[in-house]
Amino acid sequence: MGISAAVAGASGYAGGELLRLLLAHPGIEIGALTAGGNAGTRLAEHQPHLLPLADRVLAPTTADELAGHDLVFLALPHGASAAIAAQLPADTVVIDCGADHRLVSAQAWEEFYGGEHAGSWAYGLPELPRADGARQRENLRGARRIAVPGCYPTASSLALAPGFAAGLLEPDDVVVVAASGTSGAGRAAKVNMLGSEVMGSMSPYGVGGVHRHTPEIEQNLGLAGNQPVRVSFTPTLAPMSRGILATCTARLKPGVTAGEVREAWQNTYRDETFVHVLPEGRWPRTADTLGANTALIQVAVDERVGRVIAVSAIDNLAKGTAGGAVQSANLALDLPEVLGLPLVGVAP
Amino acid sequence: MGISAAVAGASGYAGGELLRLLLAHPGIEIGALTAGGNAGTRLAEHQPHLLPLADRVLAPTTADELAGHDLVFLALPHGASAAIAAQLPADTVVIDCGADHRLVSAQAWEEFYGGEHAGSWAYGLPELPRADGARQRENLRGARRIAVPGCYPTASSLALAPGFAAGLLEPDDVVVVAASGTSGAGRAAKVNMLGSEVMGSMSPYGVGGVHRHTPEIEQNLGLAGNQPVRVSFTPTLAPMSRGILATCTARLKPGVTAGEVREAWQNTYRDETFVHVLPEGRWPRTADTLGANTALIQVAVDERVGRVIAVSAIDNLAKGTAGGAVQSANLALDLPEVLGLPLVGVAP
Amino acid sequence: MGISAAVAGASGYAGGELLRLLLAHPGIEIGALTAGGNAGTRLAEHQPHLLPLADRVLAPTTADELAGHDLVFLALPHGASAAIAAQLPADTVVIDCGADHRLVSAQAWEEFYGGEHAGSWAYGLPELPRADGARQRENLRGARRIAVPGCYPTASSLALAPGFAAGLLEPDDVVVVAASGTSGAGRAAKVNMLGSEVMGSMSPYGVGGVHRHTPEIEQNLGLAGNQPVRVSFTPTLAPMSRGILATCTARLKPGVTAGEVREAWQNTYRDETFVHVLPEGRWPRTADTLGANTALIQVAVDERVGRVIAVSAIDNLAKGTAGGAVQSANLALDLPEVLGLPLVGVAP
Amino acid sequence: MGISAAVAGASGYAGGELLRLLLAHPGIEIGALTAGGNAGTRLAEHQPHLLPLADRVLAPTTADELAGHDLVFLALPHGASAAIAAQLPADTVVIDCGADHRLVSAQAWEEFYGGEHAGSWAYGLPELPRADGARQRENLRGARRIAVPGCYPTASSLALAPGFAAGLLEPDDVVVVAASGTSGAGRAAKVNMLGSEVMGSMSPYGVGGVHRHTPEIEQNLGLAGNQPVRVSFTPTLAPMSRGILATCTARLKPGVTAGEVREAWQNTYRDETFVHVLPEGRWPRTADTLGANTALIQVAVDERVGRVIAVSAIDNLAKGTAGGAVQSANLALDLPEVLGLPLVGVAP
Repeated sequence: MGISAAVAGASGYAGGELLRLLLAHPGIEIGALTAGGNAGTRLAEHQPHLLPLADRVLAPTTADELAGHDLVFLALPHGASAAIAAQLPADTVVIDCGADHRLVSAQAWEEFYGGEHAGSWAYGLPELPRADGARQRENLRGARRIAVPGCYPTASSLALAPGFAAGLLEPDDVVVVAASGTSGAGRAAKVNMLGSEVMGSMSPYGVGGVHRHTPEIEQNLGLAGNQPVRVSFTPTLAPMSRGILATCTARLKPGVTAGEVREAWQNTYRDETFVHVLPEGRWPRTADTLGANTALIQVAVDERVGRVIAVSAIDNLAKGTAGGAVQSANLALDLPEVLGLPLVGVAP
Repeated sequence: MGISAAVAGASGYAGGELLRLLLAHPGIEIGALTAGGNAGTRLAEHQPHLLPLADRVLAPTTADELAGHDLVFLALPHGASAAIAAQLPADTVVIDCGADHRLVSAQAWEEFYGGEHAGSWAYGLPELPRADGARQRENLRGARRIAVPGCYPTASSLALAPGFAAGLLEPDDVVVVAASGTSGAGRAAKVNMLGSEVMGSMSPYGVGGVHRHTPEIEQNLGLAGNQPVRVSFTPTLAPMSRGILATCTARLKPGVTAGEVREAWQNTYRDETFVHVLPEGRWPRTADTLGANTALIQVAVDERVGRVIAVSAIDNLAKGTAGGAVQSANLALDLPEVLGLPLVGVAP
Repeated sequence: MGISAAVAGASGYAGGELLRLLLAHPGIEIGALTAGGNAGTRLAEHQPHLLPLADRVLAPTTADELAGHDLVFLALPHGASAAIAAQLPADTVVIDCGADHRLVSAQAWEEFYGGEHAGSWAYGLPELPRADGARQRENLRGARRIAVPGCYPTASSLALAPGFAAGLLEPDDVVVVAASGTSGAGRAAKVNMLGSEVMGSMSPYGVGGVHRHTPEIEQNLGLAGNQPVRVSFTPTLAPMSRGILATCTARLKPGVTAGEVREAWQNTYRDETFVHVLPEGRWPRTADTLGANTALIQVAVDERVGRVIAVSAIDNLAKGTAGGAVQSANLALDLPEVLGLPLVGVAP
Repeated sequence: MGISAAVAGASGYAGGELLRLLLAHPGIEIGALTAGGNAGTRLAEHQPHLLPLADRVLAPTTADELAGHDLVFLALPHGASAAIAAQLPADTVVIDCGADHRLVSAQAWEEFYGGEHAGSWAYGLPELPRADGARQRENLRGARRIAVPGCYPTASSLALAPGFAAGLLEPDDVVVVAASGTSGAGRAAKVNMLGSEVMGSMSPYGVGGVHRHTPEIEQNLGLAGNQPVRVSFTPTLAPMSRGILATCTARLKPGVTAGEVREAWQNTYRDETFVHVLPEGRWPRTADTLGANTALIQVAVDERVGRVIAVSAIDNLAKGTAGGAVQSANLALDLPEVLGLPLVGVAP
């Protein structure tokens, strides 16, 4: 019985969150756990919260260790997944939490990542509306290779896509400023990510359109509106472990009313389990998504400047990475899409 | 089908955590939600993370609203539960998250709380060892009135009880210094609990043996060792929302070895699902218990001073309040004790 | 000897920061301290860090108590300062930390604040460039009534004004998204500002152009560029006590180069003590301004979208309120502008 | 004119705080800045808050670079200072912020640090009372080699010394549990000190009497009471950058009253500028010491258990390291002891 899943990169933050979610998943059994430099050590040294797996010893990340599972999650440094995936059977469901297969455009890949484009996989953001009226989830049912979105693109795309899908927004002059918790930077030891450096402080990074999530946001919004979109994206680092708050703004097309905006956003997510447009007057807080696979969204029109402001909150490790990965795996495996995924954040 | 549960005090932190756990509990259905001053408002205004209950309107906290359920959780200000409970049928399982029925000694009640003692109920700390070799859970099976322990007593008692149960510790000169997250102070608006006041700061309060959890810790350790125990208890406030770290120290009886200490602690919790003695050399972090019903414990002997130092970490709202409440309810209702309770914290 | 200063609103955050700075000011003596509801209590109850003033008893905030000083700082709720100021001698230097006299436009006042416009005072942002080549400090020398800018306008205006003063930016499609520490919300006890609510969370508020600092930012940028400017401003709340990080973006005029942008920003602040344009590649962190009267600024051009992104970091209570107030007082009193003001933040 | 000071280890946290204080010191000029692995880089890369020194290039830490100054501060890894100091002229004032010369007992050194004892220097805790009625500051006037205390010993010794000096406390069964901000762990990149790991979490470390500050606390309290003292010391890590809160408890000698305790503590620090015993009922918060050279202390008697509980709050980098260093330097150089040292913390 059960589907077996291997997790590569089990000692990192994305790997840990995958395991936390899989431990609560009624249809998936946890198989091999692998790591790079941490191979040979026990999981408890890296993920002391994962009590049921404390004594599991990490194997090295090789295709041999990962083979023989129905499902393989790759939470590896960028650039490492294509080679591993090529060695896995074609009918294994491979879910890549890294960036390698997110971008369709080889040119955008080369501009922002450099090196050769590894090709694109089915994009794991099921709720994303497309201009043709379908959702991205259609591409995920039965897929065998899936690219999990970046955390910023998940937050930003869900926030603004309803407006593009409904044809209400101008495709240029989109501005996204997003704040992320520190876990988005991963578990590597760096001086600038020490607690002493980040607590009590906010700072930007990757300013000026150079952050690699920029073309991914543009790809998603372009898909939603069926036209090219240009985005000014600025990420900032916030003094919290988890959470992304994306403040996204775009110019309204002439004559669009606040009522049309509200209706478009509500209609887009009316039937979604994990993406919620909040009642008017309430704004999302990242804390309400902690540990949950949810995205909380609110939208307002600033009539003085003719702009829509859409704000979304997610947990970067949950809906922004591991939750999106498991949700996509459910679709690929013909399991109920919401199976095993938490809907309620841990607050306060 | 299913057991129906009402929650009184649903707009507070304990009430919110109860609801978060009950939403994930496969054997309990959520019935009436009541509040005091917040009666008449929607739950979403107070608990925006509880998406599935967002539109529930809070009823006033009266026996009428709470009656007709199999299970009633009371998360009320101290002093309010006895009167409500008296109006509920004797076969309703009433779980009081407040202090009213925790202390057996009327004298201790009067000294620390003042006013008349409302009598004691079965004490909801299932794993607590007793000198007779049994556990506290024996008193909870089938109980109809249960007092949930205070959060500090849960952390402190679990940390030191093994040593008293095994007769290894002197009953005087016990010192407990514990740090708590701010949610322990509840949801009332107070200047000294503002984010600006607590972030970046540690401070003590209730110093000098005046904190009301002191006699409760003494009661538990006395029960474990079958002799009176005196505790110097100092609580401190830490800049985090959740979590208690209790550093507990007691003098060793002459001749007790570190090996005996280790064995006593390990034996006490070997078969427990939620209470873990960590492998030697690893110390508990509160973050690893976030949202989980777990207590992580480590113990060391300081031979220079002849003391044992036992440290425990819990989530004050989960194992320290709502988790302990649900675990006790499971026992009272003859459900599996661990049913619906999370074992894995949300980290990092 | 020395100039005597009274502080009205001494028990709040702005009042406390004024006193912290004045205690270190070699040319000003602290006189009367007044409060509203806290009148009659000792300062130590509210500002335990101000050790040298611990035993000072707060007087009620009346013109009588404030009269007889050379300098009066008003850190009062909005709407209270005009009446008090009217009762003080015309040659007393009155520095209002509230909003009442910041806006020149009565229409903007009525739209955003409502009620009658109290008139505008000299605007206390000395470094703000104006289209005529002068700085705002010219208006402050010898002034007797000064309005201290809002904290967001200080951060945002300093960030973008160089581009408007140099004629490089389009006046529409300006977008500002700013994150503030919680002290910006003041010291009133509110549930949504409790530590438990704000720690580990980011959230927006005042979305859609309704925040009262919006017209003030527009006023400043309009003054810098001598043309009306429209701003989309979204404030967010960050889990830290102090600090504002303002991410400000505007469209470049056709043909403007990155070199021209860099030069404009550097030239604007080359001779300023407190406002620093960082070397290329380094981005401001709010922690580096903690307790200091500094603004740290960086700017980049995103050529893909034709926008400039300027980011500034300040301490909302220091440069954003009390530091700006003292700097303005120095100018009004013909003291050296930088006297007594800290240039070095407390980091890490 | 003025005294010239070199700082070795200028890129670390202690070095940065020394420079922050020295920049505000009217009698000391900053000379050479040196570093180990960071030699050759600009200070701004490591200490962006130290604007006036931004462009200073760090020299390698050698005796040659440090020679020729009146005053040399060593903020080096443990074990490095003795060799450097031996190469500096005997009349240079050398202030060691490391541990090498704190302990008088070679045996204690070998037990806790290992290796050869480098000998002890004058101990830089001026306010520490001694059993003979003098203060430690007597040893510092005119000293040429000074060992700055550890941050935990500063907090703990100041908290309990009054009771030992007055003969009120039993010398065994002293228990100290202290919480420290993360800057106490220094600026080295370690996974367990990442912001993601420490935010929202409390954890102990060095449990069981193994922390190297243990013998130093015992030395200080022994000096105060003129008899050996044994201490159980447990340090914990708190989610804040700066601050130590030390909760210190000891058994009272028979018959000692609360009044005698209060009097002893108040008398000890009555004339001290930086060490304050708070009024009854108020407890210290670390935030009130942020950036200041102060120690805030409160004491209570728990009559039920016959113990005194003394709590102190300091800034570990200020009074706990760099502030104590500068205060000691002032004494060594016959400057006013308080010169240039901040008395007011940056709160909130």
